[in-house]
Amino acid sequence: MNRKLRVTIWNEYRHEKEDATVRAIYPNGIHAAIGEGLGDQVEIAYATLDDPEHGLTEERLNTTDVLIWWGHKAHHEVQDDIVERVHNRVLRGMGLIVLHSGHFSKVFKKLMGTSCDLKWREADDKERIWVVSPGHPIVEGVGEYIELDAEEMYGEHFDIPAPDELLMVSWFEGGEVFRSGCTFHRGQGKIFYFRPGHETYPTYYNEQVRRVIRNAVMWAAPVEREYPNYGNHKPLEQIQPK
Amino acid sequence: MNRKLRVTIWNEYRHEKEDATVRAIYPNGIHAAIGEGLGDQVEIAYATLDDPEHGLTEERLNTTDVLIWWGHKAHHEVQDDIVERVHNRVLRGMGLIVLHSGHFSKVFKKLMGTSCDLKWREADDKERIWVVSPGHPIVEGVGEYIELDAEEMYGEHFDIPAPDELLMVSWFEGGEVFRSGCTFHRGQGKIFYFRPGHETYPTYYNEQVRRVIRNAVMWAAPVEREYPNYGNHKPLEQIQPK
Amino acid sequence: MNRKLRVTIWNEYRHEKEDATVRAIYPNGIHAAIGEGLGDQVEIAYATLDDPEHGLTEERLNTTDVLIWWGHKAHHEVQDDIVERVHNRVLRGMGLIVLHSGHFSKVFKKLMGTSCDLKWREADDKERIWVVSPGHPIVEGVGEYIELDAEEMYGEHFDIPAPDELLMVSWFEGGEVFRSGCTFHRGQGKIFYFRPGHETYPTYYNEQVRRVIRNAVMWAAPVEREYPNYGNHKPLEQIQPK
Amino acid sequence: MNRKLRVTIWNEYRHEKEDATVRAIYPNGIHAAIGEGLGDQVEIAYATLDDPEHGLTEERLNTTDVLIWWGHKAHHEVQDDIVERVHNRVLRGMGLIVLHSGHFSKVFKKLMGTSCDLKWREADDKERIWVVSPGHPIVEGVGEYIELDAEEMYGEHFDIPAPDELLMVSWFEGGEVFRSGCTFHRGQGKIFYFRPGHETYPTYYNEQVRRVIRNAVMWAAPVEREYPNYGNHKPLEQIQPK
Repeated sequence: MNRKLRVTIWNEYRHEKEDATVRAIYPNGIHAAIGEGLGDQVEIAYATLDDPEHGLTEERLNTTDVLIWWGHKAHHEVQDDIVERVHNRVLRGMGLIVLHSGHFSKVFKKLMGTSCDLKWREADDKERIWVVSPGHPIVEGVGEYIELDAEEMYGEHFDIPAPDELLMVSWFEGGEVFRSGCTFHRGQGKIFYFRPGHETYPTYYNEQVRRVIRNAVMWAAPVEREYPNYGNHKPLEQIQPK
Repeated sequence: MNRKLRVTIWNEYRHEKEDATVRAIYPNGIHAAIGEGLGDQVEIAYATLDDPEHGLTEERLNTTDVLIWWGHKAHHEVQDDIVERVHNRVLRGMGLIVLHSGHFSKVFKKLMGTSCDLKWREADDKERIWVVSPGHPIVEGVGEYIELDAEEMYGEHFDIPAPDELLMVSWFEGGEVFRSGCTFHRGQGKIFYFRPGHETYPTYYNEQVRRVIRNAVMWAAPVEREYPNYGNHKPLEQIQPK
Repeated sequence: MNRKLRVTIWNEYRHEKEDATVRAIYPNGIHAAIGEGLGDQVEIAYATLDDPEHGLTEERLNTTDVLIWWGHKAHHEVQDDIVERVHNRVLRGMGLIVLHSGHFSKVFKKLMGTSCDLKWREADDKERIWVVSPGHPIVEGVGEYIELDAEEMYGEHFDIPAPDELLMVSWFEGGEVFRSGCTFHRGQGKIFYFRPGHETYPTYYNEQVRRVIRNAVMWAAPVEREYPNYGNHKPLEQIQPK
Repeated sequence: MNRKLRVTIWNEYRHEKEDATVRAIYPNGIHAAIGEGLGDQVEIAYATLDDPEHGLTEERLNTTDVLIWWGHKAHHEVQDDIVERVHNRVLRGMGLIVLHSGHFSKVFKKLMGTSCDLKWREADDKERIWVVSPGHPIVEGVGEYIELDAEEMYGEHFDIPAPDELLMVSWFEGGEVFRSGCTFHRGQGKIFYFRPGHETYPTYYNEQVRRVIRNAVMWAAPVEREYPNYGNHKPLEQIQPK
C-alpha cells in the first residue's frame, strides 16, 4: 500500500461529557487521546455515537481501512442497521480494534457469536499485562509486560471463542487473570481485542498501550484482493456421469 | 455420566414431504435415517420445523445434551426467539452438530459471526473426505478417507472463523476442496460442523458418515460444571490503596 | 473401549530419596501420590528413572494408553533412545500428560520443538489457577479456579508453541501469570501439560489437581484406528497425460 | 524497519548439478529462480549444501532476517550443529520459509516435533491450490486458487502439528488433498510452509507462487524486541509469609 492507512476512531463520547472526572482526564474525548497516540503515520477520522448515523456512513466505512471502537454505557443505542453495516465491512476486509468495554458492543458480540461476558471490578487494581506471544508484530517494541498502576479489573472467564492468537494475559492485584490481547479473523477482516482503557484512568496516554494500538492498526490493515465468489460454481474439471 | 446421552435431532422436514425423489430416499425423513445411525447407545428425540415452537421448547432443550441440525430451504422460517433459545443453550453447554446445508441456518450463523457462505454445485460430484487429524475422537474408526459416489459440491472459500480443530477436508471431482469437518467451542458448548448430506443422496445411510456423527455426539456431550459467574467480582486478594 | 485404560506413571524419583523434606510429603514417591489420585477406574503401572530402561521398555510402552511424566533434576540422564521410543509411541497415539518441571524433559522438548523455557521462583507464592475454557472435559468438575496456598512460581514467557487449546491460566502472588493447562496434538497422540506440582509442596494430594489429572487421562486416551499410510501413493482417479 | 529485509535462500543444489532435466529448468539452481521472484525489495544472499558450513555461518545467520529452505535428497548430509544453529536463530526471531520437500529437512522436523511424513506421487498431477484464509497477508494479490498444470502430489495425512493458520489447501487430479500453506510460530520466529516446487517442474517461475513467497518473506520478518528473560525471577509484588 503506497498511501497512508485510513483509521476511523469511534467513541461513544458520553462519559467525557457527563462526568467531570473523566473529562479532566480526556478533555477532548477518549478518541482524541487514542488518535494522538497513533501519530501521523496514518490518516485519522473520528466518529461518535451522537453523530448522524453514529458517524459511520457508508462512505465513511468504505474509506476506512481500520476502525477503532470504544463504547461502554450506551451500547444499546447503537442502531442495528449500523451494526450490520460495520459487520459487513469487517467481513469484506476492514480491520477492527475493539478496546476495553467495547467487548460488550453489538458489533463485537455479533462477530464473536458468544455473550462476551466477564468479571469486572472498579477498585484501582494494579494491572500487569504480560506478553505471551513475543514474536507477534502487535507487541513489537513492547517490553515483557505493561504495568498500569490502577485500572478496572476484568477477570476470567471471558466468554469469547478461543482467539486465533493470544498475545497478552493480564495479572490483577485482586487475584484475577484475563486474556487481554486477542486476535480473531472474521471473513477477510482482522480483529484485535485489547483490554485496558477504563474511562477513569489515563491509560490511553501510556506509551506502551499506545504502541500496542499503533502496531495493531498496522497489523489489521486490509489485504488487497477481491471478495471471494460464493454461490453456484461451475466445475473446473470434467465430472463423470454416474 | 451414568445415564444415556439425550440427543435431539432437528430436521426441517420439507424436502421429504414435497419431493418424491427425496422421499424415496428418506421415506421417514432425514432425521429418522440419522437417528437410526446413532443406534441405541443414546436416547433420541425428534423435532421438526412444523412442530409447535419447531419442537424446540424450553423443556425439550433443557433435557437435550446434544442437538443435531439439518435444514436447507426454510432457514428463514425458523423464529428468532427459538434461535435465541438454542444459541443460549449452546453457550450453557449443549452440544450442537450442524449438518450440510445447516451451514446457512440462523443458529450456526449466529454462533459463527460470519456469513457462512460457500460455493456449491449439484452435479453428482464424487466426494472424497480425507481425515487430516487422525488422533481426534470424532474420526475414530474411520479410514483414511470416506468416499461418496455422488454428492452436492461445497467449495472454498467457506466463510467461517478458523475452526478450533480441522478434522476433515473434502476433495471434489469437479476440482474443489472444502473444510468438511470442523470443531468450534462457543461458551461451554461444543459444535461440530460436518459437510455431507444433500437430500437427494443416500448419504446418511453410509456407515462411515454415521460413525462420524455417532462419534461427534459423544464428543459434544456437555461437561458437568456450573455456568461461570460473570459481573461484579470482589477481590480475592487485598488491593493496596493508591 | 471396553477395558480399563492402562496408565503408566513415570517419576524421576530422586528428590524423594535424597531430600527428607520431599520424602516427608511423598514417602512413597510422587508417582504413588499421583496414582492414588487416579483411583481404580484405570489400570496403573509405575516406572522410574533408575529402573532398567527407565521402566519404559518396548513392551511397557506398547501396553500403555496414557503416560504421565514427572521429572526435574535429572532430565539429562534420560537416555536418548528411550526418548525416541516414547516420542514414537506418542506419534502413534499414546496419550502423554506432562507435569510441572517435566516442561524441560527431553520428551516434551522434542515434541514441542521449542526451548520450553520459562521464569521460575521458589518463594511460596500463592497460586490461583483460573479456568479459561470451561466447556473442556479436562476441567469437568473443577470450580472457577484452583487455589494452592504455596507453590513454585512459573512465569511467562513460556516458550512453547501456541497450545491447541488453552484451558487454564495461573495467577501468582508475586505478580506473574502462566499458561498452566495446555493441550497439544502430535501425530495421533494427545498431550496435556499441567503446571502445578513442585516436589516440596503437597500439590498432588489436592482434590482439584487430582481431578484435572484424572480427566486428562481420559481425554488423552488413544483412538482406535490404523496408523496412516505414508509414502508413495497410487492415484485414486485417472490422471490425464500432459 | 527502515532498511531492506535480508533474505538468505538456502538450496541443497544437487538435482540441478546431477540431472539434466532439472538443470534445463533451473540452470542457475532453484535458489536463483526463487531469488529472481523476490525482486529487489529485499537484499538476497544464497547458501547451498556444499558451501563451507552449508553457507550458514554464525555471521550469515545473524544477518539474516528470513531464511528460505529448499532441500530434498540430501537432508541427512546437513550437519546437526548447523541444524542446531538454524533452530536457535528461529527461536530468536529469524523467519523461516520451508518449501516443498523441505518438509523432511532436519530443521523443519526439529521445529515441528513430528515425523512430517506424507503421501507423495510423481505423476504429473494437476494441482489447484485453494485459498482458505483470504484475509491473510501471505495470500494478498493471489486469486481464489493457483493452478499448476503438473506437479508432484503430496497427500494427507501430513504429519505436522495443527498449523497456527491454515492458508491454502491443494486439490490433486489423482484424488488427494493437502494442507499446502501453513503458518507456525516457534519461539519468536515465524515459519511458513509452502508445498509446491518439485525440481522437475518450473513452479518457481509461476507468478502466483512467487507472489506467495514474496508475501511470506514480508510476513516472516522478525519483530524488534529483546529475547525474553528466562530463569530465576524476583517477585514484582510482596509475597506474604506462610
